[in-house]
Amino acid sequence: MKKTNVLTLRHPPRFLCFAAVGGREESVGQIGKHLDFCDPSDCFGQSSWERAEGEMSRVCLNFALKKGRLSPEDLSVLFAGDLQNQCVASSGGLYSFGVPYIGLYGACSTCTEAIVLLSLYLCHCPGSAGAALTSSHNCAAERQFRTPIEYGAQRSPSAQWTASAAGAFILGGEDVPARESEEGCPVFVSRLMPGKIVDSGVKDPANMGAAMAPAAAHSILCFLREGGYGVNDFDAVFTGDLGQVGSSLLLSLLSDEGISLSQRHRDCGCMLYDTRKQDVHAGASGCGCSAALLAAHVLPAMRRGEYRRVLFLSTGALMSPDSIKQGGTILGIAPAILLESGSNAP
Amino acid sequence: MKKTNVLTLRHPPRFLCFAAVGGREESVGQIGKHLDFCDPSDCFGQSSWERAEGEMSRVCLNFALKKGRLSPEDLSVLFAGDLQNQCVASSGGLYSFGVPYIGLYGACSTCTEAIVLLSLYLCHCPGSAGAALTSSHNCAAERQFRTPIEYGAQRSPSAQWTASAAGAFILGGEDVPARESEEGCPVFVSRLMPGKIVDSGVKDPANMGAAMAPAAAHSILCFLREGGYGVNDFDAVFTGDLGQVGSSLLLSLLSDEGISLSQRHRDCGCMLYDTRKQDVHAGASGCGCSAALLAAHVLPAMRRGEYRRVLFLSTGALMSPDSIKQGGTILGIAPAILLESGSNAP
Repeated sequence: MKKTNVLTLRHPPRFLCFAAVGGREESVGQIGKHLDFCDPSDCFGQSSWERAEGEMSRVCLNFALKKGRLSPEDLSVLFAGDLQNQCVASSGGLYSFGVPYIGLYGACSTCTEAIVLLSLYLCHCPGSAGAALTSSHNCAAERQFRTPIEYGAQRSPSAQWTASAAGAFILGGEDVPARESEEGCPVFVSRLMPGKIVDSGVKDPANMGAAMAPAAAHSILCFLREGGYGVNDFDAVFTGDLGQVGSSLLLSLLSDEGISLSQRHRDCGCMLYDTRKQDVHAGASGCGCSAALLAAHVLPAMRRGEYRRVLFLSTGALMSPDSIKQGGTILGIAPAILLESGSNAP
Repeated sequence: MKKTNVLTLRHPPRFLCFAAVGGREESVGQIGKHLDFCDPSDCFGQSSWERAEGEMSRVCLNFALKKGRLSPEDLSVLFAGDLQNQCVASSGGLYSFGVPYIGLYGACSTCTEAIVLLSLYLCHCPGSAGAALTSSHNCAAERQFRTPIEYGAQRSPSAQWTASAAGAFILGGEDVPARESEEGCPVFVSRLMPGKIVDSGVKDPANMGAAMAPAAAHSILCFLREGGYGVNDFDAVFTGDLGQVGSSLLLSLLSDEGISLSQRHRDCGCMLYDTRKQDVHAGASGCGCSAALLAAHVLPAMRRGEYRRVLFLSTGALMSPDSIKQGGTILGIAPAILLESGSNAP
């Protein structure tokens, strides 16, 4: 049986348009001014944090559609997921678009997971467009995974701040003609890799970075070896939300394998907030973290030609409050996509 | 932008092998004797219901591999999902296989959703094999969604019994040569359709059948119209877990559209248990319900040539206990696959 981890797309889809939306903390972070919309109340006009997240997703996809001068009728499929139990932020927030829906759960790796699957779909339907969207909400996540924010629980130094953010990506297949709304260099998904689950052995839910770093290291090593790349073949290697603790662990794990990634590595969890001013401890996390960074920073920089080839991995911690209480370890996963623009484009 | 709901697969993958596993109630149901393994304790050797579900998944994939004389190293990818918060039964139960993993959440529609995505993956990698697996566990689901079974809560007549079951499917791409272990007619996935989310307006979590029936009706109508089929072009149309209430609603909704499905319709939720002897109220439900029926009844019957063309839909209710408490309606979804064997094969 033929086996491959890294798939080369025969008909690479490209990003037609994208958008990112956030809350109060996100608006004053490093990429705040590049977000398409921020609600300083974090409520998005809703009466619960859970519903706020669904509305944030809806608003985000609307921004992406508007920027691409597209309507929901142009989309053949929508891949989406979030952190809420049974992923109700995505289904509840997005069903009104009436687009065929595929629900995902990859914890904080869902953004890349969604783009992996959407890209495969568009290889099969090169004349079509589809969307990928992921979100997370700090207050919904805190009360579901830890304690309601009203309790004012003390946070561990290794803990990360779940982002209240969403990122939406509309991709078009190879046969979709160039559109006026596409500015700058087109950005393609040229290769992709679903990640393997790696058991970190970590049982501390306040240290997700440590739990996810081994999976990120595994995926990066696998991509380099199977793809025949050296670290310097990429302008940057982005990880999703390792934060400060997980990022230094990643560099150390790769260093043990003879790979020096420090010059090329960027972590979305270390870039969403301004850790000099914001009390977010080890950085940002959540499905919305890597999604917002991809939409508000990575893709715009690629369209401007500042990056030509980027390896982008979202990182996920596969656990639940129940699995932790029952003594389970936190499993990590890190799917990857290779983004290429300009002269490197496929 | 080209738009299609029903995708015709250019390189239809086929089922190499499959397995179904269940618990006590499943062992004495209509298909009990066709299950590969049943644990009358429902515990699968574990100390919690949640872990029992993960172990059941692991056992189920092992049975499928063994029946196909395959090893985990033969699999390029694994699509999986379940009903537990953060889908930890799938990740926790299956990570030890070391197969690249894609986590899904489509509620009880996850079985068909997983086969939809695996089929797209294998169209891209026709020389590879991959697996789809879904599970549910009655006791884990009861305490997560309703009340722990120890409370002995009274159940509503429209309520369904979440199956303690798992189904595993290993599919191979077009270029995978025929294997000795494949008995009878080969069965292909020739067309597929991700479903649209339909808002049923139903808010009663004890009546999932009513909540999902409109989505099933929508998907069946869409498949007939776009695919150019009449009802009699199928030997059977299977729905996932509408149960008795949802099934009669489905037939009524389709009848309003001039479609008479009663002769061809089968519902996995009405077939898993023996409702004359088992007190399961409106029938079975859960991710494991349609998966077990597909593996233990539909595919074996197709291999024997008893069905040649089957439209198979799993049905999902997209909700959470929180979304219900916050006044949300239950959203339904019903992805579909067209299974063909023998002279109808693509």
